[in-house]
Amino acid sequence: MTDAKYGLLTIGNALVDVLAHASEEFIQEQYQKHGMERASMNLINETRAKELYGQMGPAIESSGGSAGNTSACYASLGGNGAYIGKVADDQLGEVFKHDMRAIGVHYDTTPLAVGPATGRCMVLVTPDGERTMNTFLGAAVELDPNDIDEELVAACAVTYLEGYLFDPPQAKEAFVKASELAHKAGRKVALTLSDPFCVDRHRDDFLDLVDRHIDILFANEDEIKSLFSVSDWNDIPALVDKKCEMICLTRSEKGSVIMNGQDIYEVPAKATNVVDTTGAGDAYAAGFLYGYTQGLPLHEAGEIGSIAASEVISHMGPRPQADLKTLLPKKAA
Amino acid sequence: MTDAKYGLLTIGNALVDVLAHASEEFIQEQYQKHGMERASMNLINETRAKELYGQMGPAIESSGGSAGNTSACYASLGGNGAYIGKVADDQLGEVFKHDMRAIGVHYDTTPLAVGPATGRCMVLVTPDGERTMNTFLGAAVELDPNDIDEELVAACAVTYLEGYLFDPPQAKEAFVKASELAHKAGRKVALTLSDPFCVDRHRDDFLDLVDRHIDILFANEDEIKSLFSVSDWNDIPALVDKKCEMICLTRSEKGSVIMNGQDIYEVPAKATNVVDTTGAGDAYAAGFLYGYTQGLPLHEAGEIGSIAASEVISHMGPRPQADLKTLLPKKAA
Repeated sequence: MTDAKYGLLTIGNALVDVLAHASEEFIQEQYQKHGMERASMNLINETRAKELYGQMGPAIESSGGSAGNTSACYASLGGNGAYIGKVADDQLGEVFKHDMRAIGVHYDTTPLAVGPATGRCMVLVTPDGERTMNTFLGAAVELDPNDIDEELVAACAVTYLEGYLFDPPQAKEAFVKASELAHKAGRKVALTLSDPFCVDRHRDDFLDLVDRHIDILFANEDEIKSLFSVSDWNDIPALVDKKCEMICLTRSEKGSVIMNGQDIYEVPAKATNVVDTTGAGDAYAAGFLYGYTQGLPLHEAGEIGSIAASEVISHMGPRPQADLKTLLPKKAA
Repeated sequence: MTDAKYGLLTIGNALVDVLAHASEEFIQEQYQKHGMERASMNLINETRAKELYGQMGPAIESSGGSAGNTSACYASLGGNGAYIGKVADDQLGEVFKHDMRAIGVHYDTTPLAVGPATGRCMVLVTPDGERTMNTFLGAAVELDPNDIDEELVAACAVTYLEGYLFDPPQAKEAFVKASELAHKAGRKVALTLSDPFCVDRHRDDFLDLVDRHIDILFANEDEIKSLFSVSDWNDIPALVDKKCEMICLTRSEKGSVIMNGQDIYEVPAKATNVVDTTGAGDAYAAGFLYGYTQGLPLHEAGEIGSIAASEVISHMGPRPQADLKTLLPKKAA
């Protein structure tokens, strides 16, 4: 992968996170009134976004978006990364752009001049550190195949797509275009399933995509069970065998399992004080892909994933507050 | 004070903080090139704000503003508070308004419809947790005497003013108007000196104001030394004697000293892991004034100040992330 200008290109919904603490009672009430699913990503429209914002507590803002977080972590680890995602030409769009470039990610998707505002994700963090997300996609919905720069895709060792991109219809086309361009250039394509409800919404498309386009798949337990419509974790290895070159399954405090053909590696989680799990999976993927694009053994790549995830869950907000490369064992940094 | 609708009204520059980690080398370089004073509040214009934003690291955003932080902490402690400060009618203004109201602060200053954007403070946090602030006042500069609501001031037991308000010229008039209205209604007026350089810029005005209008003065060591142009802390008690009814001097990890006529109380700081000192003084003032407006003994009020400050410095951002009232000793809550 030494001929690639960038190690990792990620493509996703460009969002600013609005993070607030919330009680279990508040989550329960919102579930009863609005079907807000705890610990998941709920898609909401602008009216509902305004209503929820008016009801939630004081917040902090942090650039977010699943793939955006992954690129930010990848850069913080020392990797050379790029990002494609759509913001609007507004204050929150400026914030998003700043945060990508400031951490060292190449980012120049043209912002949306006319239309919805920059998308945002209202993240409600319960006392156990679990996050329940409510996303108003805003300008992110306008990402389309024209935003996929062929030259950029060809210059990246791995192109990584977030499953959430299947929600905005044009983004799905952008998704497939990016996969085809990456393979045409001899590169790898990775996908994260993102969320069990997102998998529910687009199961057939995901199964087709995984079969045809994906080399490296990231998923957590709920997502992979949802994809194959099974309820027992033990059924998973046989089902995923040969679906892709490599599969990384994250299991929260149980760590992760990496399957590479017949080779299976179990990687422990890194213990930390859990404040807010927002971005944990994004950080894990960044760490794994950093190790992978550096050519490290897969179990070491998984350990870097655990290190990145543990930093991100130790504070409010989905992006690293520490310089992740300083947390790496010496041989990996 | 039981007849007051609100315990505390604070008036200040309404700002959104943009907080990022920075190295000592970066601070030093900015000092050499732009005179940026470490550990102080530097006033900057829009051009410089854009330049600095382009050079600083990835950030998180949090509603801030010294007096705004104090009202937020006061509400989090369980107090009934109000705030006056000017934002613009834009996304960051919405964020500021949301955060005040969501924490329970009464806030209805009319936002600026035409003119500069919502003000922001770029906060650079060095590895020792010290914050160096760079403020573009934006819409905050447009606060004027018409924004001071006589009925509101009269309904508040204490009106608290931040010294930073002396920077925008019209705000100074608003400042004096609020003091006069508060006293006319038989209420108390408190002031924080805010920053040693701010005191330098307006020393004579501050001395005059303290003499004529202020009942309760908050200052840290550098600020009070700057006000009286002395270098020895031991000279302070004699100088401040009889200047106001009460003076609270904060001394970072040495805690605080409360002087009430002949009575002097020394209050220890509450130990914590210092991540970011932004808002420490604001939180201390909130805690002290919460105890004071509840009629608690002054040393207990000081202890609540220490508790509030210790929470705020344990994470990035100037506002509480915990519910401060849950941290109070049972007798005070």
